[in-house]
This record gives sequence, C-alpha cells and structure tokens, in this order.
Amino acid sequence: MKENCFDLSITDLGKRCIHSPPGISGYVEDSKRILFDSTLDGYNSCRDSQEIPLSVELAGPRENIFFDPAKTKAAIVTCGGLCPGINDVIRSITMGLYFRYGVKNIIGIKYGFRGLNPDYAHKPVQLSPDIVKDITSIGGSILSCSRGHQEIPRLAAALENLNINILFCVGGDGTMRAAAQLTQEIARQNLKIAIVGIPKTIDNDLNLIEKSFGFDTAISETVKAIRCAHVEAKGAFNGIGLIKIMGRLSGHIAASAALAQNDVNFVLIPEAPFALAGKNGFLSVLQQRIKLRGHAVILVAEGAGQEYLRTADEHSETDPSGNIRLHDIGIFLKNEIENHFRKNELEINLKYIEPSYMIRSVPANASDSIYCSSLGQYAVHAGMAGKTGLLVALMKDEYVHLPISAAATRRRIDPKGNLWLRVLESTGQPQTMK
Amino acid sequence: MKENCFDLSITDLGKRCIHSPPGISGYVEDSKRILFDSTLDGYNSCRDSQEIPLSVELAGPRENIFFDPAKTKAAIVTCGGLCPGINDVIRSITMGLYFRYGVKNIIGIKYGFRGLNPDYAHKPVQLSPDIVKDITSIGGSILSCSRGHQEIPRLAAALENLNINILFCVGGDGTMRAAAQLTQEIARQNLKIAIVGIPKTIDNDLNLIEKSFGFDTAISETVKAIRCAHVEAKGAFNGIGLIKIMGRLSGHIAASAALAQNDVNFVLIPEAPFALAGKNGFLSVLQQRIKLRGHAVILVAEGAGQEYLRTADEHSETDPSGNIRLHDIGIFLKNEIENHFRKNELEINLKYIEPSYMIRSVPANASDSIYCSSLGQYAVHAGMAGKTGLLVALMKDEYVHLPISAAATRRRIDPKGNLWLRVLESTGQPQTMK
Amino acid sequence: MKENCFDLSITDLGKRCIHSPPGISGYVEDSKRILFDSTLDGYNSCRDSQEIPLSVELAGPRENIFFDPAKTKAAIVTCGGLCPGINDVIRSITMGLYFRYGVKNIIGIKYGFRGLNPDYAHKPVQLSPDIVKDITSIGGSILSCSRGHQEIPRLAAALENLNINILFCVGGDGTMRAAAQLTQEIARQNLKIAIVGIPKTIDNDLNLIEKSFGFDTAISETVKAIRCAHVEAKGAFNGIGLIKIMGRLSGHIAASAALAQNDVNFVLIPEAPFALAGKNGFLSVLQQRIKLRGHAVILVAEGAGQEYLRTADEHSETDPSGNIRLHDIGIFLKNEIENHFRKNELEINLKYIEPSYMIRSVPANASDSIYCSSLGQYAVHAGMAGKTGLLVALMKDEYVHLPISAAATRRRIDPKGNLWLRVLESTGQPQTMK
Amino acid sequence: MKENCFDLSITDLGKRCIHSPPGISGYVEDSKRILFDSTLDGYNSCRDSQEIPLSVELAGPRENIFFDPAKTKAAIVTCGGLCPGINDVIRSITMGLYFRYGVKNIIGIKYGFRGLNPDYAHKPVQLSPDIVKDITSIGGSILSCSRGHQEIPRLAAALENLNINILFCVGGDGTMRAAAQLTQEIARQNLKIAIVGIPKTIDNDLNLIEKSFGFDTAISETVKAIRCAHVEAKGAFNGIGLIKIMGRLSGHIAASAALAQNDVNFVLIPEAPFALAGKNGFLSVLQQRIKLRGHAVILVAEGAGQEYLRTADEHSETDPSGNIRLHDIGIFLKNEIENHFRKNELEINLKYIEPSYMIRSVPANASDSIYCSSLGQYAVHAGMAGKTGLLVALMKDEYVHLPISAAATRRRIDPKGNLWLRVLESTGQPQTMK
Repeated sequence: MKENCFDLSITDLGKRCIHSPPGISGYVEDSKRILFDSTLDGYNSCRDSQEIPLSVELAGPRENIFFDPAKTKAAIVTCGGLCPGINDVIRSITMGLYFRYGVKNIIGIKYGFRGLNPDYAHKPVQLSPDIVKDITSIGGSILSCSRGHQEIPRLAAALENLNINILFCVGGDGTMRAAAQLTQEIARQNLKIAIVGIPKTIDNDLNLIEKSFGFDTAISETVKAIRCAHVEAKGAFNGIGLIKIMGRLSGHIAASAALAQNDVNFVLIPEAPFALAGKNGFLSVLQQRIKLRGHAVILVAEGAGQEYLRTADEHSETDPSGNIRLHDIGIFLKNEIENHFRKNELEINLKYIEPSYMIRSVPANASDSIYCSSLGQYAVHAGMAGKTGLLVALMKDEYVHLPISAAATRRRIDPKGNLWLRVLESTGQPQTMK
Repeated sequence: MKENCFDLSITDLGKRCIHSPPGISGYVEDSKRILFDSTLDGYNSCRDSQEIPLSVELAGPRENIFFDPAKTKAAIVTCGGLCPGINDVIRSITMGLYFRYGVKNIIGIKYGFRGLNPDYAHKPVQLSPDIVKDITSIGGSILSCSRGHQEIPRLAAALENLNINILFCVGGDGTMRAAAQLTQEIARQNLKIAIVGIPKTIDNDLNLIEKSFGFDTAISETVKAIRCAHVEAKGAFNGIGLIKIMGRLSGHIAASAALAQNDVNFVLIPEAPFALAGKNGFLSVLQQRIKLRGHAVILVAEGAGQEYLRTADEHSETDPSGNIRLHDIGIFLKNEIENHFRKNELEINLKYIEPSYMIRSVPANASDSIYCSSLGQYAVHAGMAGKTGLLVALMKDEYVHLPISAAATRRRIDPKGNLWLRVLESTGQPQTMK
Repeated sequence: MKENCFDLSITDLGKRCIHSPPGISGYVEDSKRILFDSTLDGYNSCRDSQEIPLSVELAGPRENIFFDPAKTKAAIVTCGGLCPGINDVIRSITMGLYFRYGVKNIIGIKYGFRGLNPDYAHKPVQLSPDIVKDITSIGGSILSCSRGHQEIPRLAAALENLNINILFCVGGDGTMRAAAQLTQEIARQNLKIAIVGIPKTIDNDLNLIEKSFGFDTAISETVKAIRCAHVEAKGAFNGIGLIKIMGRLSGHIAASAALAQNDVNFVLIPEAPFALAGKNGFLSVLQQRIKLRGHAVILVAEGAGQEYLRTADEHSETDPSGNIRLHDIGIFLKNEIENHFRKNELEINLKYIEPSYMIRSVPANASDSIYCSSLGQYAVHAGMAGKTGLLVALMKDEYVHLPISAAATRRRIDPKGNLWLRVLESTGQPQTMK
Repeated sequence: MKENCFDLSITDLGKRCIHSPPGISGYVEDSKRILFDSTLDGYNSCRDSQEIPLSVELAGPRENIFFDPAKTKAAIVTCGGLCPGINDVIRSITMGLYFRYGVKNIIGIKYGFRGLNPDYAHKPVQLSPDIVKDITSIGGSILSCSRGHQEIPRLAAALENLNINILFCVGGDGTMRAAAQLTQEIARQNLKIAIVGIPKTIDNDLNLIEKSFGFDTAISETVKAIRCAHVEAKGAFNGIGLIKIMGRLSGHIAASAALAQNDVNFVLIPEAPFALAGKNGFLSVLQQRIKLRGHAVILVAEGAGQEYLRTADEHSETDPSGNIRLHDIGIFLKNEIENHFRKNELEINLKYIEPSYMIRSVPANASDSIYCSSLGQYAVHAGMAGKTGLLVALMKDEYVHLPISAAATRRRIDPKGNLWLRVLESTGQPQTMK
C-alpha cells in the first residue's frame, strides 16, 4: 500500500499555549511516530528510494494543551447499534476529563447525532464521576444510540449553540463519515471545536486497527450460542443447529468464534461465496455430513450469501408488503435447508438461533473494559491538545492518532489467507463449495 | 379436589423376594405415605366423615426388591425436547443401578421411543459409570431425543426382544401417556417389565409436582435474555425489547423470570387473555408506557394469544406454503406492534429476541443437578422394587411415587392468585388489558 | 417429635380493624393451617388418640390488618455475615410495604442491631422503591451487617424512640434469639411493635425450614471452587486439592456441593467424625487413593474435626498471641497432610482453596432471588397484620408462620441417612474412617 | 535498547528439502522480518548511521520443511504452574501436526521435564485429534505440569531414546532457560532435534512479548474476586477486603485488574515500594480512607513488599517450625493491618481473599483460546521447518520467532509510566506512600 505521508497527518486547532495540569506525565511529542510499514523490506525500500517513510502519530498526553480546562465544555455522543464497551468509553472519557484535566463541564448527547438536532428536543445529560462510576457493569449506552443521518451544518450550529469545545464521537463508519464532514464544516466556519472519534464496529472490520472494542466480548458470547447449537444438533435425530451472527461486510466474528469453539462444521461469510445447489454446493455437502455424522452446526454471518437474497427478492415482487425477512440470510438458509431435505426425503431437525441482540447488549468483558478505558483516555489527551478530525486507535500494539477518514478502509477476510485456512481446518468444510 | 384414594396407588410387578444388597440403608416401607391434603381442614373433614384420607406412597429404597441385580437389564429412554438436566438423570440412574444395586447391564435407547422401533435401526448404546461420569457438564441428552408416537405393541415387543426388565422413561406428558399405555400392554401380556417415569417439562406445569427439573436453570437463562432486552430497549429511542419464551399451556417460565429480573414491563401468558386493540388493549397500554418512559420490555410465553393466531391463519389461507411462522405469537406481536406505532406515527425501535434454544440446551445449574440426581436415584429404587406404571416426583418437599397418569394434570397460573398478582406488581402492567 | 400444638401458635399485637387496601387479594385466614406431621401414620395416630394434631399457620395477606399504612413506620435490619439474597429481601419488603400497602415511611438500620444502639450513632437510611429497585444485581447488604450482641432493653427503647411499628430482622440464630427476647421485652412494656424474622443461614441448617435463602447460590459457587481444585489436583504430580467451605455445625453445603459436582473424593463434615491417623484413618485412606489414582479432591466444612483443633490448641499454649488460625481446620488439615506425606516420603502437591468470602458475597441466583422476594412479601403481610415474634418460612412447599424460637432447632446431616449415603457413593469415600 | 542484530537470529537444524504438504498456503520466507524498533526516530537513526536495523523473523508456514512428516515424531511438554490455555496450546499443536502436516506420531510428556527423566518412569501418552478435541473446555493441562530442574544431558538422552524430532516446550522462564541449554546440548551432540518454546507466564511479564496467553482470562477471574472483596468491605462496619493475587516480579495482573474493575482503592506491586509505617505510609493512608469512607479494597501482588518479609523472617528465627507463611505478603499485611487498627483502637472487619488457584485453573476464555490456538499453529510451522532454540511470540500484532533466550527479559511496570499513572487515578491512592 502506497499512501502519501501527509494522508496520515493530524490537524491541530491551533497553538498549544497551556501547560498540562500537574499530575499528568509521560508526555508524548507529536514527532514521536511509528512507521506505517514496519517490515525490513519496507525499511530497505524507503532507504534506497530516499522517500520519507509513511508514519503515524503516537497518542498520549501532550505537555502543552490547547483548551483551558476551566473553560472547556466537552460532549460525548454515541451512535449506531449497541456494542459491548460503550459505557466503558463514556466512563473513561468523563473520568479522564474530570480528574486528569479538571474539566467539569461534560455533557452527554442523547440518541446519537439526532440529540444535536433541535427538532427532536432531546435534552443533553450532565456527566460526572458520580454518574459514570458504576455504568460499566451494565451493557448498552447510558446515552442511548440512534442511526440515521443529520444535516452537517445543523450539527455544527448545535455544537456552537451549546458552546461545546470538544466532541467525542463513538460510532461506526457512517458516524465517522459524518464526523469527518463535521470537522470540515467546522474548519470552514473557522470554529475552534475539536472532533475526536472512537471507532466502534462489533464486526472488527476496520483495516488499520488491530481490534475494535467489544469484539472480544462478542466472540465470548457467540461461543455460548455455538455450544447451544451443538447440543441441540446432537440432541435430535439428524439435528442441525443454524446460527446467524453479526457481520455485514466481513465474517470476522463468525471466523473467530469458530476458532474459539470447535464445534462448528460450516462457516458462511461474505468473503467466501458459496453455491447452494450443485454437486459441490453447500446443501449437498451438508447432506453428506448429515448422512455421515448425524448432526451439523452452521454459523452464518448476516452478510453472507446476499446474492441469493437479491434473487429471492425478485421472486417475491408480487408480495406488496415487501417483507424484509426475505433479505435475512438466516431465515432464507433455514428454508432452503428444510426444503432440500424434504425434497430428498431425509428427516432433519433444524434449530435456528439468532443471538445478535443477546451479544451486542452484554457488558464488556475484562479485556474489552481495559481496552475501552485506554481508548477513552487517549481520546481525552487528543481533544485537550486541540487535535481534530482524528480517531484514536490501537495499531501494532501502540495507541495512535489516525485521520478520521481511516475508519473508511475495511478489513475483510482473505479467503486464501491464514485465518480462513485455519477456519477451514477447524471446521473441516471444503475449501470451496461451488 | 376429591379423588379416590386408590387412584394414587402404585402397582407392583410381584412379590419382592430378594434382599437389597448390603450398603443400602434407610429403607422405606410401602405403608409410609403422606397425606395428599395436609391441611388441618382436610384432617378434620376426613376425621369427621370417617373417610380414609387420600395419601401418596413415599419413594426410597425398599428392603426387599423384585429384580435380581445380577440378571437385570435396564434401559433409559429420553423423549421430547431438550431440557437442562437430562444428562444428570441419565448419570444418576446409571450410577445408582451400577453401584447401589450392582446392575451392570444398562443400555441407552437412542432418539426416544423410536429407538425401540426396529424400523429405524437405531442401535442402543451401552451405559456404564465411565461413560456417564462427565456428561453433566454438557447440556442436552447423550441419548438424543425425538418427538412423535410409536405403536405401543411394537414397543412392548421391542422391550421383550431386548430382554429389558426396567425401562426408565424421561419425557413430557406425551411420553407419559405412551408410558401408561405401555404399562397396560405389558400387564395385558403378563410381562414382568417395570416402567418408571421421570417427568420432564421445562414449562413446570405439572399439577401435583412441586417443581420440574430444569426449571431453575431455565429461569436463570431467561433472566439473561431479559437483561439484554432491557439494555437494547434503553439503548435506542423508544426502544422495545420483545422476548418470546417457552410456555405452551402455562406461563410459569415467563412469570417466574419476570419476578427474578425486575426489568420486565409486560408479561403475556396463556392463562391471562388480553385484547390487542381498544382503549385498554395491550397496544394502547404499551403506547402509554412508551410515551411516558421511552422504553419497554415485553415477555411473551409462546402459548399466549393463540386466539389471534388462529384468526391470522384464516387470513392467510391464500398462502399455499402454510407458513408456520404465522402461528408464532412472537413474530405476530412484533408485526402488530410495529404496525400500530407506524399507524400512529410514533417512531419505535423494536428488538425481537427468541432465546428458547439457548435455554433448553445449557447444562443444569447446581440445584437442578442435585435435583435430577435425586430423581434418578429414587427412580432406580422404584424400578428395582418392581414397581411399575409410576413416576417419581417431589411433592411437599418429599420424594413420592405417583401413578404415571398423574403427569396429565396441568398446573396453570391462576390469574387471580398470588403468583400472578406479584407479577402484576413487579411489572406494573394493568390487571386486565381488555 | 411430640410438641404441644400451642408451641406453634403465633402472637397477634391486637385486633385487626383496618381493611387491607384494594388490590390485595388471595386473603388467607388464620385458621388455614397445615399439619406439622403430614404422614398417614401421623394422621392415624392423632385420630386414634383424639389429640388435636400439631399444625402451622399459613402465611399470606390477611383481609384485615392491624397497622394503618398511612401512619406506619417500618424498619429493616440485617445481621450476621453476608449471604446471597439479603438485598433481594430488602427490596421485596420495601416494595411490598410501599406498593401493596402504601407504607411510605420505611427505614434501613445500618450495621445490624448495633445500628439501633445510640452509642454508635449510625444514622438509619430512608428506603424507597427508587433506592432498592436495582440492588439485587449486587451481592451483600446495602444496609451492611454486623455481628455481636446489644442490650435488649436498649433495642426496645430505640425502636420506641424511632417510632418504629414493624421491625423486619434478617439474620441467623443469634439474631433470632435476640429478636425473640426483644419480642418479650416489647410485650412486657406493652408496646405495639411487631417483630418479624426472616431467617438467614447460608449453612441451610434450620430444622423446620425446607431451604434457607442463599443456599442454592452458595452451592453454585462452591461447585466452581471444586472444579478448580480438581483441575489443580490433576495438573500436578500427586496433586491434592483441599477446599475449606462454610458449615459450622452442619455440612449441608459440603454434602450438596459434592453431589452437584462429582469430582470430590472426600467430604469431611461435623456430623461424621473421622480419625486422622491409624490404618483406617483419613490420612491413610487418602494415601491409598493418591497411590492408586495420583490425585484427590477434599472438601472440608469449617466445623469438621474440631476435636483435633482443641487438642492442637493445648499444644500451642506457649504461643502468647493465641493464634486463631490454629482453630482453622483447613490450615490444620493442610499441615497434617503435608507432614504425613513428608514422613512417608511421598511427594504430593497440595493446593489449598478457601473460597468462602467469594461465595457469600455474590448476588443471588435466579431461584434464590425469587425465593427471597417471596419471603419478603410474606413478611410484610405478617407485619401489617400485627403478628409478632414470628418468622416466615417455607415448609413442605408452603409459606408459613413459625414462632421465632423455631430458628433455634438445627438440622444436621444424619450420617446414616440417605443424603450422606449418596455423598459416600458419589465420592467413593469409606463409610467410616476410624 | 541497542542489541546486535544477530542476537535475534534463529537457528536452523539444516537445509529444508521437503516441500510442504498440499493444502498449506500463505508461505512466509525467512527474509520477511519486522523492525525491532519501528519508530520513525529509529528509522532515521539507522539510516543516518548506515547500521543494519535490528529485526525479527516472521512466523508462519515455510514452503520447504526440514522434517519428513511421515517419519517425524513430535512431543509436547508442559512445565511450571497452571495457566488458562495450556490445553488449547496442546490441542492446537496436535491438530496442526496431524492435519496440516500429516504427522501422526505425537506424544505428550507427563509432569513437565521430569517426565523425560527415566528415574520417574512417567509413561508418555499418545496424542491424537480424538484425544485433544474436547480438552479446551477444561482448565489445567491434560499432561500435568511440574516444577523443578532436570539434568540437561539426561533430557537430551531421553529425547534421543524416544526418537523425538521436535519438542514443544510450554513453560515459564525456568523452562525456557532449560530449553535453551537443551538446545545447546543437542547442537553439541549434533543431534537433529528441534526445540520450540511457547512461553507461559500468567504474570504477563515478558518484555518482548505483547501479551502472554492466559492473561486475559486471569484478569477476568481476578475481577470477580475484586467484586466480592468490595461487597464484603461494604457489607461490614469499616470493612476491608484484602486480595492477594499472582505477580512475583511484576504487578501486571494487579494493575490491569484494578483498571478493569474500578472498586480497588490500593494496588500494591513489586515495582512500587511502599512504607508501612509513618505519616505517609500505607497503614496511615489506609486509616484515613477508612475514617473517611468506611471501607477499602486492597489488591496486593504476591511479590510486593518482600523487603518486609525478609525482616519479619529474621524476627521469627526463634520459631523452630520455620513457618513459610511468614513469607506470604498477604497474611503479613492482614496481620499488620489488624495490629495497626487494634493499636489505634479502631474497629475494622478485614476479609482476606486468596483466589490464585481459582484463577490459574479455569479454562481459557474465548480470546485466550484463539490466541493459544495461533501460538500452537505457529510453533508447529517453526518446528516442521527445522528451526530450533526459538519461541513463538506475538510482537506488535505480528507472530514472530524469537531466540529462546528472549524469554529471560522481564517486563516490569514503570512506576512513572502511563499504566501505573492510570492505576493511581483509578484507585485514588497517593503517588507514593513513604
């Protein structure tokens, strides 16, 4: 990947003239950067071509900061669907602002960006250590989330009206796109408002980022669903446990969960298309397994096999109600499997499990909790330093600043790569089902 | 309830001529019985009328037994759906037969009663302490279950062909009905085969029985689903968490889970019919709550509101595929709620959770595990004593023998009783929604 | 057991002149009683001797009550050590008083009975639905507990000074003794204060009571410790896992946990004395097992083998600091085992686990939670009816009123009974080790 | 850190002449290396000084391998104490050898290195997919572990006698030192045996390695103990919960657990010495907190405050029994705290919790399980390629080969660094207690 070094540079709102409050230490200078390409080959190539290597700014407290803590008002907004750890991030930002920097004016925007839209009249809530100290034991977001787009200029106006100096945005790629536009609008209006993103995607599909928060917890919970599906499959004659799991564009949850709990026999993900029919198609392979072993567990990512759903959709054009369930790969597969075995006169007992809402809503496990706490803290350091249009991320085991646009690059599973190869080995499913 | 005392008598296969092996103690005589009605009023009424009071035989080891352990062959069969604790029962029966009585010839029938039907050619498996010792850490049934009826004479013939002396049947009311018929057929043929039932119903709806095994575990797991639904409901604008849970004829799981986890706002059960539409109907009450509080959690037993589904069914007569999902109260309610709020132009965010398969398939918790172990042990004592056509049960904190037909009497929630009153208080839902 | 029927009668503070608030139903009359001895033999014997059978009053709402809700002030006090479910009881009492009866003046006494002793100046806390609604998700007691005796007349004076009408006491046998004396003192002074006990003993050793609250949860947690001890034992050469568990006078927790998790090889309880040395003593039997199997798990109740500790104590009279750890059977056994194997030149690896504080402090599981909620509710009904000197209890699957002195009768494990026999079978330990 | 580049080079047993079996892909060449110092400053400094930068070999499958799978015999040995995930590593190595390379001859050495010492006559066990497939659901090591040194030449002889080609060593720094010496001995004798290490330290204190396996799980379990200690502390008058946790040389577990569960008030670790007495000493600070807040939770790493134990030891020279508990910082602190408050006539209620054996013995959580599975797989690739004297490790989010000696470098917590600063903020404890 060749990108211009400036693509990874971070914007400052202005000169930092205020010394960090006492008690903060371990200052990091902006010049501390890590190489984007840390291979020896990359080193040699840069050295030979005399190029300046692409590098990324390290996160951490800056000795001088931009905002005066006593006069600073900060806001937190959480967008999109639930994900384990959101409350940990809210807690960490609030605690960091309050205790490390002495910022006392902290508000929480309700229901995502729409909480900034005056039409909805959602009143922000005041945040303080007392309010956030115990929120990590419950899942969800104390600020609630919402999906959907708001007009960028109205968001900028709302921030100005509320006298917000720093806005911390927790959300997925849609949110990050909006945050990037908001940063531009703010710059255009020459406002001094910092926008700091904490990327959230339970699917763990951000390319530059080692691991998204909540992913570890999601895997732990998915493992429980797999165990249940396995027990149900073995507990009935020709039992089939079918689980639909999160993963719109990439099957990281499905693949990792299958590695963590070895009872899965088939993993279906968006990155590895499969045929349903035909001698080597999925249904045929499934039938072979049922005949041989008498049970099977299938884990399907919600984004898998979308090509079949579009087809199915065309079939159902006559249905006036436009039943959205037809786009559901889980229900679709359930029906296809049941029809296939009925046609082949083989009794099966299929149990369909859709645990997504029971996964997204649990509290973060310990490692996610620590991770969220770090992300929140680094976000606070970045915001107080007047950095804007950035997100904090873990990259090669270091916390760094990335331009907010970095959240747009997707990480997908390479169907020829090591991760997928291990899934195939673990499940025993064929390399291709076509 | 006035029943004839003889209704509760237990049949013996014959005279018990063999002394229990050494090591067994705490013998119970058949004459040890507990009063069916243990109230003081009951006492007085019987005393005054000079009636013999209705009483129930205590379970426990008998000093003399009918079957010679060295020559006895026992079989276990598990029928119906999964329920936490089945493996604990299998383990306990096997261990009790093997170590307490020295019965070494123990087999497990696969896939319920159909495993006794030679057409299916399911080979029984040999059971031994080594095979069963660690099975309680996994859910389900190592013998697998199945539903569906088999011809009674064929079952009797199969038992005879396999030289089985005692058959332990773990199953629900259908299974118990079949077991009762099988007992009669065996008696008719004058065979000496004991049929001992261990009633299984995750719904906890057996009238004479204090608590069915697996129920405690089921409540624990349902509580987790409620927590998730509550987090999802609070995490979105006008969020509604809708959970469908087991409970075909009675809402014990829904009611108890609502008492155990106080975040439920509406419990819908078969015993308490509700109107959907109308000023005091469910949809209207739900709308009031959403307007007032901004979120709601609904727990619906699968058997609730069946009157609406029959209606819906008639609507859908044009659908040739006879979509079974139309009978699903969960999906039906989801659609009704979404339509209602759409019509009333109120945004809601409904998350539908159906955790049943993730509840039935978990291992028994500690208290269910101990309970199952007791049931298994008492079943062994009954079987070795040559008692037949009975089931073992916990009644007023004592383990007793009941005629197998007792499993037919349902316990339903009294909508005017204390349990339901407490649910209403805990949820805050109106006494009636009509 | 022959007791006079009047021993089980409950005292009323006075005539009940106020009708229960609307909404309460399912009234129970005082004359509704269940037989103390519900066996058929008991029936026959009473009928023949023309004696009035001993019976117990059923708990439940009374149609008329003694206290006027609008003028009633109630207090809750929690005494002794922690136990899962205390907060559930506090919540249930508060909710019941508030919503069912409309009592708004409810206080919580801090730190047990000493919170009523003005010397300590512990201010009571106001209780309300808002304060108690989420307390069941955390363990412990929001009121904190304490041990130790307070002077009875001072307690009575404190209740009068605080204008308390009903005192709900959650505590063990010491607490119940104090509550009984307090009831007498109040009667002597002719005060109209109801004392209602909710017995708490994690050891489950109350004779007349089916199950004490928190016991189920305690077993679940003990099972986890057993699993760990087993893994540690198997993970080392001649590994021994030794767990000390609660159980001062009776080994119910140890026995039940051993039944729930079958990896225990030795259970040592107060009721079944054992020799340490000698050919058939515990150390010798343990050595045989280690030689044969290479690992062992031992579960010892804290009250077991106290005869050895008294002896050990005499040895250590030279120690001026009076080291209380010498009374600790866990540490004592650890040392004895290690010395024994050292003397016999057999390498062992002993891991000592003492999980008690990690068991007492967890939140109640679902079934304990429901149970505590029932106990609290019935306590409220009894208190509002002006009943005093009683405790609410589950007996033969019915909630009843027992005189508070009933908490003094201990239930111990019969070393010849069925429970202990099952433990011996499950562990494989010899019937006696002497 | 300046180290010679050759220090990080990996030894090969010889030329790789066999092509990897089909099905393996994603080959990695030895020349693929990542920079040891991946900072931009490091880049610039190397480029300017014309030095070859220090770099590390990437792990992964090699296109050509050294050992012929059909003739290869591999062995796995697990040493030291238990740690969550050992069975996952055993499973992954066995599965990888068997399915990816077709190595069928795999044995497990029992009880660590002593299983290779013929004096002990511990027979190795055969490993196969059937044997290992379900072992990840239980904690510990199916091979059992042991501590203690064995003579290196005897180990080498044992490997030769058993015809072992690859030895996989799972263990801590003692094990890795032995493995390094064994590698040298094998080289001296010119044997062709590969030694591949998988470093295990629940303390997470290896300098070059991102995270040791089992650490995530250990934190999760420690968090449970903290919750209990907090409940116990709040549940009593002036309650103090004191937890002793693993951490001989470094306090990573204590520090991370305190970040994950925010109820800890004092964290005591080896890296941050503290005074006990004195105005600013720990006891004094603790007393202030107790007076102010009425409860406290203390988390102490077992290696903390060792200077006090040495002193205490000298005091106790008169004790003939040489009580090893005097070296125990947990018991020592418990006594010091109780004495301090007794002297100051302040009642406290201290509950001491030592959960270590209940932490080390649990099964790996999902993220550790996946991690262990990766480590095992990369170890197999390294071994089959004939690489020796190395360990596989995660470094900057990449799996790499490090010389086995790398396990000797400790990572300790910097008492001026960011991690410790966050712990201080989270707990509120003073920066120094001296």
